[in-house]
Amino acid sequence: MKALHWDGQSLRLEPSYPTPKSADRMALVRVRLAGICSTDLQIFKGYMGFKGVPGHEFVGEVSKGPNKLIGRRVVGEINFACGKCKFCAQGLGRHCPERRVMGILGADGSFAEYLAVPVANLHLVPESVADEEAVFTEPLAATFEILEQVKVKEKDDIVVLGDGKLGLLCAQVLRLTGEYITVVGKHQDKLDMLKKLGVQTVMLTDWKHRHADIVVEATGSASGLKMALDTVRPRGTLVLKSTVAENHTLSLVPLVINEVTVVGSRCGLFPPALKALAQKSVTVTPLIERIYPLSEGMDAVTHASRPGALKVLLRS
Amino acid sequence: MKALHWDGQSLRLEPSYPTPKSADRMALVRVRLAGICSTDLQIFKGYMGFKGVPGHEFVGEVSKGPNKLIGRRVVGEINFACGKCKFCAQGLGRHCPERRVMGILGADGSFAEYLAVPVANLHLVPESVADEEAVFTEPLAATFEILEQVKVKEKDDIVVLGDGKLGLLCAQVLRLTGEYITVVGKHQDKLDMLKKLGVQTVMLTDWKHRHADIVVEATGSASGLKMALDTVRPRGTLVLKSTVAENHTLSLVPLVINEVTVVGSRCGLFPPALKALAQKSVTVTPLIERIYPLSEGMDAVTHASRPGALKVLLRS
Repeated sequence: MKALHWDGQSLRLEPSYPTPKSADRMALVRVRLAGICSTDLQIFKGYMGFKGVPGHEFVGEVSKGPNKLIGRRVVGEINFACGKCKFCAQGLGRHCPERRVMGILGADGSFAEYLAVPVANLHLVPESVADEEAVFTEPLAATFEILEQVKVKEKDDIVVLGDGKLGLLCAQVLRLTGEYITVVGKHQDKLDMLKKLGVQTVMLTDWKHRHADIVVEATGSASGLKMALDTVRPRGTLVLKSTVAENHTLSLVPLVINEVTVVGSRCGLFPPALKALAQKSVTVTPLIERIYPLSEGMDAVTHASRPGALKVLLRS
Repeated sequence: MKALHWDGQSLRLEPSYPTPKSADRMALVRVRLAGICSTDLQIFKGYMGFKGVPGHEFVGEVSKGPNKLIGRRVVGEINFACGKCKFCAQGLGRHCPERRVMGILGADGSFAEYLAVPVANLHLVPESVADEEAVFTEPLAATFEILEQVKVKEKDDIVVLGDGKLGLLCAQVLRLTGEYITVVGKHQDKLDMLKKLGVQTVMLTDWKHRHADIVVEATGSASGLKMALDTVRPRGTLVLKSTVAENHTLSLVPLVINEVTVVGSRCGLFPPALKALAQKSVTVTPLIERIYPLSEGMDAVTHASRPGALKVLLRS
């Protein structure tokens, strides 16, 4: 099958990469659309030391697996957990110490024609959700994770730092609970997109916000944390979303002095995201910048790497 | 009066520093004992850009102020708040944006014969608490702050990193709630002191603890945070106590991936600390390494700066 392959040094389109073999409790999924995430771009800078087929966002149809799933349209949670440990027992398989992670840690991902996913990780896509929406399930679930971790109150002053893909999703999801969301960004076109959705926005250059109750750091950059610490009020909450390959270098004195709570936030459960997509309570398709065929995957990655690029998809 | 004075470059014993003047809502306190804290040593490395009389730990007697307080033995909270802002209204004067902080920010401190403190900040010292115990009220209150910020459960696996002054107090306070406390340190004598108090200890060199529910970073060193991140379980809580003058440089990826909650923790309210001292539920006097007269304050600071030094006090 065709697949993009990262060997730790360079990315290549492999025309005949081995199709995943059938295995116990695994389904083979024919990928329809895959999304390129900033994490993938970090992997190409050395993040996680991953080697293999990258990609952890997809929608596809089951090609091999349980009979009742064959031919059905699915999305899949990315953490392949052991199912036996104490984290798995608590429903926290995404923190299973033995886990593999699709396209990130020990498991090939979705930048390919086929993908092997544990049957337990699959979720059927509702009829009303298009492929171009369903492919956002994973990043959207990661955004809903914030609501699982932090108690957001209706009147909270919430600031989202970053108008990239993650910031645009975060703003929409937080708005389901909170009234006062401000997104700080660098791109007028993206902020305009949010304005149309009724979210308050401000250009970074015009921005002097202080003492926010909740700040979501979604800049995708190591420098975002300092800005977030400058923005959050004493005893406020800072949600750290960005994973970057490089170290952070900053003074954490404000964190201690202001007794800030920093909550690291990663993957979320898929059902709230699928429900939001089905109910059209979030709008994801305006985030699609371009769809490339998998055969032009190298160009797609180059495109996704452009500063300010929104979601680039691969169709296979 | 005699006072130690830090001019931003060097520390000197001033034989005739001006005694603080009377002022509205302020009391003049004759210092009996003052404690040298690691924060003071950080100030001498540039922390907070403070200039003036350092020191924020003391016990003394009121020399000028409300009649009912004259001659009474007092300790004092270190944040001098405006009393009018929304933080003050919530009882969070220690986060008042207009605050001065004794010996740290805009207010002279306790390394002197006399000290000016807002009357509202003073607490009477119970008869049963000796000066040598009362002088620990401030650092002990900062430790009780953890219990105000983090819900500690009896069965939680709690690790305290650091066997310095702060670590020794943290371990004792956490043990009032939790059953399973382990202190990781570098000094066998200090760990032995904790063992006598019934706390489990381990030398850093022998230590392989992972997946703790709560980790308290009390190393006083920028490198402690990485160790704490390696120790805390996914979805666990990391209490960050150390304030250091230098930057932190580390990867915060584990914070995000493991969805750790980092809670910055600074000053606390005095009543729980005074109550614990009165009830003898914590033991502080073994932490006293030496008491110097204020006139030998320069030697005292040199002593307190020795690696591994415990509490050095100044008597005036």
